[in-house]
Amino acid sequence: MTTARHQALAEHLADLSRTLLRAHWHSAMPGGQPFDDKADASPVTELDRRIELELRETLVRETPAFGVVGEEFPAHEADAEYVWVLDPIDGTKAFIAGLPVFGTLIALCRDGRPILGVVDLPISGLRWVGVEGEATRLNGHPVTTRPCAELAQALLASSNPESPPDHHLDALARLRRATRWRLYGGACSAYANLACGRLDLVVDSGGMTPVDYCALVPVIEGAGGVISDWHGAPLGLHSGDTVVAAGDPALHRRTLELLHRA
Amino acid sequence: MTTARHQALAEHLADLSRTLLRAHWHSAMPGGQPFDDKADASPVTELDRRIELELRETLVRETPAFGVVGEEFPAHEADAEYVWVLDPIDGTKAFIAGLPVFGTLIALCRDGRPILGVVDLPISGLRWVGVEGEATRLNGHPVTTRPCAELAQALLASSNPESPPDHHLDALARLRRATRWRLYGGACSAYANLACGRLDLVVDSGGMTPVDYCALVPVIEGAGGVISDWHGAPLGLHSGDTVVAAGDPALHRRTLELLHRA
Repeated sequence: MTTARHQALAEHLADLSRTLLRAHWHSAMPGGQPFDDKADASPVTELDRRIELELRETLVRETPAFGVVGEEFPAHEADAEYVWVLDPIDGTKAFIAGLPVFGTLIALCRDGRPILGVVDLPISGLRWVGVEGEATRLNGHPVTTRPCAELAQALLASSNPESPPDHHLDALARLRRATRWRLYGGACSAYANLACGRLDLVVDSGGMTPVDYCALVPVIEGAGGVISDWHGAPLGLHSGDTVVAAGDPALHRRTLELLHRA
Repeated sequence: MTTARHQALAEHLADLSRTLLRAHWHSAMPGGQPFDDKADASPVTELDRRIELELRETLVRETPAFGVVGEEFPAHEADAEYVWVLDPIDGTKAFIAGLPVFGTLIALCRDGRPILGVVDLPISGLRWVGVEGEATRLNGHPVTTRPCAELAQALLASSNPESPPDHHLDALARLRRATRWRLYGGACSAYANLACGRLDLVVDSGGMTPVDYCALVPVIEGAGGVISDWHGAPLGLHSGDTVVAAGDPALHRRTLELLHRA
């Protein structure tokens, strides 16, 4: 279980990240910003690294027995019982292009299972906090997913339509035909909005890693939703690169069935 | 030419729209919101209609000789010399789903040609104002596009990957292969960020109407960019449903060549 101290620490990290992201966002407007390429050619800013370093230093000082896994630096004690999982800028392409759907993701896993998650959207000033066994809060207020059992009624979001591997394209085409309408490019903002009843389904595959989804698990489950990989297995520190999140458990079941229909 | 009075009026409309959109955004968080379907099945809220009505009433009172074209109601004097072109919520799907990339678009056309454009992003608090023959301003500060002549270096944005008609899919696939990376779902936020050097190219086809692009023309041109339809023709009140916007004129030429390469 998490303690109030761990929750406060996670929110403190989110505060640090929000302050740095907002300062950079405003100082870089107008004008562009330099960025580097990672080996996989996805863009990443120096800022991303700087924030992750700052969060890591805080965590090593405050919770020295815990591991830390982030996107930019090698893992630290990734096999500890408790491991922090960090992504200072989820949606780096959106960040670089000036689209305010990016956010900071902070999770705490115990034995690989996410038990605490924070999704912070610095530009819109919204923060979702999920704690295993508790109701998810958005800026301090409890939130829930909305009922939507039928695919034909569902609003579906996906991150980048170029990410899925070829062997998933047929399944994703079935899902597009079955759902009401689709939205792309929302990054963590889409998952967070599912957790307050603003959309019904988020499905991704390809390029997803634990730093992209660990924080989402307690947030979505604590709001009444279901999140898993494409085979229905729980997501955690050792999961793969597919995600299905639904606000309504019946919709989650139907989506898994549709994805695997021959 | 536009007068200072017309510019002030356009900004007044943007203020009205921003106030209503922000109030609704915050009151609807947490929780969902009802919405209707238009005939084409794209979602639209009562709020969209309410804002457009309010803007129209202001315009009919302040500029009675001018026409008004909006997304939600029949055109008023669309063949007048001066015509206002309104879209209170560009990116309605994003708005409904809680993704803050939507914005208000306000243009003034003379003889069908956009001579004044405002792009207002209410949640991030950013406003681009473009006036024919003047430097585009972002929150009052002059902004410019950035140089990027080569497709291989270009960051490309498109709205919804499901919008293009089948006969454009090959051209768009060529464009994806030729560019550095792509971003989807940015709506007017993508075009606006092109006008301050945060991305290089925005290409859309299918579903685009004059209310979606008239306001973009003075904003992008006044920042040093080029915007046209897929045949290189200027965009205005009577144009079709394709758009190519580039920050660098050389990139615009190369993109048109690539789109039409057999």
